[in-house]
Amino acid sequence: MRLSIASYGLLLICVCLLIHLELAWISGHSAGESAELPAAEQAREYYELYENVWKDLVYFPIPESSEDEKAEVSFENSWMFERTYGGSYGHEGTDLMPSVDRSGYYPVLSMTDGVVENIGWLEKGGWRIGIRSVHDVYFYYAHLSSYAEDFQKGDVISAGQLLGYMGDTGYGKEEGTSGQFPVHLHVGIYVRTEEIPELAVNPYWFLRYLEQHKLKYSFS
Amino acid sequence: MRLSIASYGLLLICVCLLIHLELAWISGHSAGESAELPAAEQAREYYELYENVWKDLVYFPIPESSEDEKAEVSFENSWMFERTYGGSYGHEGTDLMPSVDRSGYYPVLSMTDGVVENIGWLEKGGWRIGIRSVHDVYFYYAHLSSYAEDFQKGDVISAGQLLGYMGDTGYGKEEGTSGQFPVHLHVGIYVRTEEIPELAVNPYWFLRYLEQHKLKYSFS
Repeated sequence: MRLSIASYGLLLICVCLLIHLELAWISGHSAGESAELPAAEQAREYYELYENVWKDLVYFPIPESSEDEKAEVSFENSWMFERTYGGSYGHEGTDLMPSVDRSGYYPVLSMTDGVVENIGWLEKGGWRIGIRSVHDVYFYYAHLSSYAEDFQKGDVISAGQLLGYMGDTGYGKEEGTSGQFPVHLHVGIYVRTEEIPELAVNPYWFLRYLEQHKLKYSFS
Repeated sequence: MRLSIASYGLLLICVCLLIHLELAWISGHSAGESAELPAAEQAREYYELYENVWKDLVYFPIPESSEDEKAEVSFENSWMFERTYGGSYGHEGTDLMPSVDRSGYYPVLSMTDGVVENIGWLEKGGWRIGIRSVHDVYFYYAHLSSYAEDFQKGDVISAGQLLGYMGDTGYGKEEGTSGQFPVHLHVGIYVRTEEIPELAVNPYWFLRYLEQHKLKYSFS
């Protein structure tokens, strides 16, 4: 018996329908597999990482001076303000601006317990130090005039420990480049997610909180 | 009847066309499904929503008493601690526990400007009020003994405004059920994402921050 064209057509339609159903099933199936986390769980995971910052914060990074009442710092919410050194990008941090514009004057303290993860020169950050805190948050202090000690990667740091002094280093490939901008401390805070090794969060609010937790140092 | 070569050719073209359409369908379909945001953007969106809470916070919800020094509240981080009324679930809030265990004693103030979104009895929350703040965050105050005014949905609220009094209402279908647990204020904070209308965030850290921003009320 021979098949008519109509039969061929019918067969073709059946085959296509089966292929379609099969592929739909696969696609649905793989959607299930890649069904990553539902949105709420995903959000909650991110929020837990974010809240880890809280858990580690102890002190405001600039102490009050017990001798010089005018030695204050101010800061605003400059999150994602445009920065243009070496290309245009958003400001991933908060700048603490001193009332006394003198490099090497203000002590810079660690906000947290932690371990030195990075130390030394960065073209943008100048003399910087990066501390990994107990809950896996990265605290980045940039533009220092100098370090308080000969820190090495892996050194254990205590909250409130003197890291170095506020300066104006950076914005240059050559180590020690300074004076390219006003003296200030750039504070960056980064959490680590499964997909993103360095996810910047806005330090502004944390610093607002820490304003109530200032140490007093003797400097003038 | 036999199929001519031309008919076979036509059939082949049809099959190819169908496969092509099918693949286009799949690719469009799955691309659409997985077309979510890259992880970093997604995280940043969630963090922006979270940081909106900061932007609206003004006052701690329980004022200090100018007359009774002992009228304090304490609180711990009880986020997701098990609660069992009407089934087992995580605690989506922070409980402010009074030093004076008296219903109707402590004023409860709005932490933010906003608008009354919910008011009245809830089986779990008792007499509760929910305020939607300027940056679209929902602040939930539960177990009140009474309201300060005959609030209506849509009423505009100012930060620091008296909402009612701390009590022990709730855990009952019947309006006014009280005394099922110690007097306290349950504070809940919810952000709204595109997918999740009520995503709870942990109020503990925000309350820690607000501790530095207490109003003084005359009550004893």
